[in-house]
Amino acid sequence: MSAIAASAIRQHLDRVRAQVDEALDRLLPSENEFPVSIHRAMRHSVFAGGKRLRPILCLETGRLFDGDEASLLRAACALEFIHTYSLIHDDLPALDNDDLRRGKPTCHRVFGEDIAILAGDALQSLAFQVLASPGPPVDSVKLQVIHELTQAIGTRAGMVGGQVADLEAEEGNIDAQRLDYIHASKTGALIRLAARSGALYAMAAPESLGRITTYGEKIGLAFQIADDLLDELGSTEELGKTAGKDREQHKATYPAFYGVETSRRKASELVEEACESLEPYGARAQRLCELAHYLIERTS
Amino acid sequence: MSAIAASAIRQHLDRVRAQVDEALDRLLPSENEFPVSIHRAMRHSVFAGGKRLRPILCLETGRLFDGDEASLLRAACALEFIHTYSLIHDDLPALDNDDLRRGKPTCHRVFGEDIAILAGDALQSLAFQVLASPGPPVDSVKLQVIHELTQAIGTRAGMVGGQVADLEAEEGNIDAQRLDYIHASKTGALIRLAARSGALYAMAAPESLGRITTYGEKIGLAFQIADDLLDELGSTEELGKTAGKDREQHKATYPAFYGVETSRRKASELVEEACESLEPYGARAQRLCELAHYLIERTS
Repeated sequence: MSAIAASAIRQHLDRVRAQVDEALDRLLPSENEFPVSIHRAMRHSVFAGGKRLRPILCLETGRLFDGDEASLLRAACALEFIHTYSLIHDDLPALDNDDLRRGKPTCHRVFGEDIAILAGDALQSLAFQVLASPGPPVDSVKLQVIHELTQAIGTRAGMVGGQVADLEAEEGNIDAQRLDYIHASKTGALIRLAARSGALYAMAAPESLGRITTYGEKIGLAFQIADDLLDELGSTEELGKTAGKDREQHKATYPAFYGVETSRRKASELVEEACESLEPYGARAQRLCELAHYLIERTS
Repeated sequence: MSAIAASAIRQHLDRVRAQVDEALDRLLPSENEFPVSIHRAMRHSVFAGGKRLRPILCLETGRLFDGDEASLLRAACALEFIHTYSLIHDDLPALDNDDLRRGKPTCHRVFGEDIAILAGDALQSLAFQVLASPGPPVDSVKLQVIHELTQAIGTRAGMVGGQVADLEAEEGNIDAQRLDYIHASKTGALIRLAARSGALYAMAAPESLGRITTYGEKIGLAFQIADDLLDELGSTEELGKTAGKDREQHKATYPAFYGVETSRRKASELVEEACESLEPYGARAQRLCELAHYLIERTS
């Protein structure tokens, strides 16, 4: 990606992030609403400086097919609430035991473990509340997205299934198949769904939905590999979280298994393949293609 | 309630529980499905001997209005998955720190805190998955129940809001208004929704839905008072959990605030009022009325 294109996509993403943040603020209970501790905890973690990758994917795929902007924003926020719930629980002492997330103290460090557990729980419920709210799209689409979301975050090749497989991998046994399962489930399924949800909300034709699904799968894996590379190569300061922690915890990572160079090449290939799948849309899909490149930018 | 009526309702409830348990078994991933630890943990807690109050309420109100049995059973199971998720998280060391639940070791005691946290998370998602599954009732009803459920378990006068208010109450400040909020939110909202969901699934008329809502609110509070009384008066053996723990933890309970006798009278009054609200249905509502009496039976 050229320096000019990189700068343009960064500016665009900043604008979209501001839209998402405004919508998240509208949908979250205020900090002064009773009981205040839980609402403060939810807001602390939602506004801790996330990249908003999942909401942006939903919005941009929805825009490609001229979806209704207001309802796309709601779906986008629901995805971010789910993502934030998973981070809060993942950071707990019983799981990854992280003190820092995006350079800020994690939820349980500020509000205690009890409130952090409940804040994660409440963000999951809030996501489904937002998706089941009145307004467009048609009911059948809302139910399909809700159903697909529950699969993407569930125990059968969904987010929680991937987390459990990852926990078990720390105990030793890991092969290429297991590593693929962990990546596809733990982060891949929700990123894939983020891309699909925008297309579903915009009533994209089945053929288009297929292309978007391929795009979502490719960048989901590319993003995970890039994230593993950053953990392997980055400094704690750059990451905003403790660097090298994956390796230290014997986490199943792509570079640990295939080496740094092979991982970099794999991530680049996946991004190229993701962009190829959108070729039928020509210049209209430029944003989604730039977004794919942007995701792995810091690691190549 | 006469001895004969009490025995008849008990037999009936045993039959309904068996139906519910069979449906729960069908909807849960098997113990051998990868990753096995999470599925074992979910099943451990779902099949730990629960009373199935919420599923039974949903089924019985649905049956009063001739709802479709198969879809009522699904909604009933979703309510039990939500209830079980809340118990697993409530028992965690960071919250109530309970080793026993219904006489069995709690989820985190058997599977570890990490798996227990994720099992609760997964049960919440599974509940919404079941509610968003294909089949009757019509989409608009499914979405209404999903939306109402997210409110019943959320932070604004829902289950998590009540839990947080309860946690804060342990630190001292508690008045009658706060106690009412805790009861209505922590357990009342989900029991009310359990009663409503059956009527909604059966497309009950608005007037009927109003009566069922009143019934659900009254028995929700009666049940919570009865539960508080059991904790105050029962032995650990009878309860299957550590007796007197509420008092020890300075929990906000009805008997602690109003005394045992006033609490007993209040619970009885609520059950009478619940039954009165169903008088228009005559003998057809007998089961629901008997169920209301049964709920407070062990404490009067």
